[in-house]
Amino acid sequence: MSESRSFISRDEAQSPFFVGLDLGGTNIKAGVVDDRGRPLSWLSVPTDADKGPEDAAARMGQAVLQAIADAGLQPSDVARVGLGSPGTMDIPAGKLLKPVNLKGWDDFPIRDRVAHHCGLPVTFANDAAAAAYGEFWVGSGRDFHSMVLFTLGTGIGCGIIIGDFSIDGENSHGAECGHLIINDAEDARVCGCGRRGHLEAYASATAVIKRAEKALTNRHSSSLAARIAEGAELTPKLLAVEAEAGDELSLEIIFEVAQAMGVGIVNLLHTIDPSGVLLGGAMTFGGNQTELGRRFLGRIKEEVNRRAFAVLAERTTIDFASLGGDAGYIGAAGIARVEHMKTNGQAN
Amino acid sequence: MSESRSFISRDEAQSPFFVGLDLGGTNIKAGVVDDRGRPLSWLSVPTDADKGPEDAAARMGQAVLQAIADAGLQPSDVARVGLGSPGTMDIPAGKLLKPVNLKGWDDFPIRDRVAHHCGLPVTFANDAAAAAYGEFWVGSGRDFHSMVLFTLGTGIGCGIIIGDFSIDGENSHGAECGHLIINDAEDARVCGCGRRGHLEAYASATAVIKRAEKALTNRHSSSLAARIAEGAELTPKLLAVEAEAGDELSLEIIFEVAQAMGVGIVNLLHTIDPSGVLLGGAMTFGGNQTELGRRFLGRIKEEVNRRAFAVLAERTTIDFASLGGDAGYIGAAGIARVEHMKTNGQAN
Repeated sequence: MSESRSFISRDEAQSPFFVGLDLGGTNIKAGVVDDRGRPLSWLSVPTDADKGPEDAAARMGQAVLQAIADAGLQPSDVARVGLGSPGTMDIPAGKLLKPVNLKGWDDFPIRDRVAHHCGLPVTFANDAAAAAYGEFWVGSGRDFHSMVLFTLGTGIGCGIIIGDFSIDGENSHGAECGHLIINDAEDARVCGCGRRGHLEAYASATAVIKRAEKALTNRHSSSLAARIAEGAELTPKLLAVEAEAGDELSLEIIFEVAQAMGVGIVNLLHTIDPSGVLLGGAMTFGGNQTELGRRFLGRIKEEVNRRAFAVLAERTTIDFASLGGDAGYIGAAGIARVEHMKTNGQAN
Repeated sequence: MSESRSFISRDEAQSPFFVGLDLGGTNIKAGVVDDRGRPLSWLSVPTDADKGPEDAAARMGQAVLQAIADAGLQPSDVARVGLGSPGTMDIPAGKLLKPVNLKGWDDFPIRDRVAHHCGLPVTFANDAAAAAYGEFWVGSGRDFHSMVLFTLGTGIGCGIIIGDFSIDGENSHGAECGHLIINDAEDARVCGCGRRGHLEAYASATAVIKRAEKALTNRHSSSLAARIAEGAELTPKLLAVEAEAGDELSLEIIFEVAQAMGVGIVNLLHTIDPSGVLLGGAMTFGGNQTELGRRFLGRIKEEVNRRAFAVLAERTTIDFASLGGDAGYIGAAGIARVEHMKTNGQAN
């Protein structure tokens, strides 16, 4: 088991406690939070997806128990475990269906197997919904009544929270907003899912890299071309560095992402009308910490202003997420807490 | 007061009773329904918007009391009144803001004024949400857990229901899905709201008429041209008649509406993942009653199949609404009933 970091002490913490699991294609994070969403411990273990789902379920169970011990707690102190997982999935059944990044895990009853291995009740959730709930509970969305989180990475994840309710959908396909159609033209870009014109085909890291590759075949004046000739890998990070150094093509590509996100966000505003929209994930160009990140966000807001109803453009907060890689396990724990409160008839 | 029609008798009906008001630019409908959504009476009175909102509120109060009398009931038999109104509006405040089709009614506290005039508690709702709730409660959506209703008319209305919850949004702008961006190109069609590329600019009656006018300047071979030369008015109804008679241009324009609706519906499927999507309003080309209506629906389904996740295309019901002009007052009464149950702590 790798790194583990404690945040607040057992004495400061307020019971009951919850454990969140964030299952990824590479790593599994397990963390203990208190009733106010403050982490007491977390740790990360490899997913080792190729060893199969039962092996990983056992490792998730162990990680839960280890995180509880690291927090100075007993399993009996923990009311419920939340498991955030990539799809496709059947949430009410607690089953994976055909998870794209977990080959060979099809139809695995993951909720009950993890519960078996840790001896605690488990609530099953979509990983993007869990991250959204984390931001809603204790992150940038903590003052919102409703919100949308977009995570910009290899793909685009999305979670929608209204009150304490996550829009999971009837077939566990709610909030698949990376697959909003923003361009229905014949020549629209093709998404990773094989369909045309989706937001993800314009605003994911994958899309950005494809777009840059194509542009570089025509525009050798960009400093990107020089960096790549020197052996650098073409990544959103490289684009950010070059854009900050004044490369026009890199900035143009980043602003194209902002435009596509503007259209996607307007479609959410005109459907959900949430208190706020947050942007997280690996591809936020430094977020609020950098000039480039702030310009990216500013451009998104301009695109939204141009296209949304004035009252929504004016009143809807658009900002970066703040929990980073902790959003997933904190939010999974938070969703477990909501189920615990419902089961126990308590108000929030 | 104009026509009034009773549906079930006082003896068959199950208490408590609710009254729904459907406020339109031209007429106001008031109807009494029982606890199972079955109408006992309804009547229609002119809105006479130019006489101002206080005058209309008095007329709405009278209409409520008349509908109650027509049903053989006393006001004390009615638990609550629901008022479905066009926007813009502030639902929690019970106020109109700047209703587009009710000039001079800005900032009118309509909920409390109608309550004053009928002496009963009033729940305020968006008219499209009310219609959606009506279909959800006792119409084509009665077997759904969640649904979207699109009403195709001069504009495109939309209501989203999940469980007993209507997505009203934080600023009473939820489910404004006629204003989903389906085309972000510079030359996209301009919507009635002044912005580009919205669904309503492609799939409303207004859009269809504009599109046909433009096409007729180039294609005089269409039988539409002959009808118009004979003095017929260019309407969706005329297009339907000519399409049924074999006119290719008319059918092409109707199928363009189906394509745009397919894109809009896919965006809702990938956001909400509802049990079903229903189509209502004046421009459904005869609905399930005609060959053309069934072809229109079939084409929408094809467009959805091409663009949506397979599991959603397969499992999501897409059909016509069934309550017609009754959806609004029945649904407004239903939303009042939900508030009544919440207030009285009863389960559904």
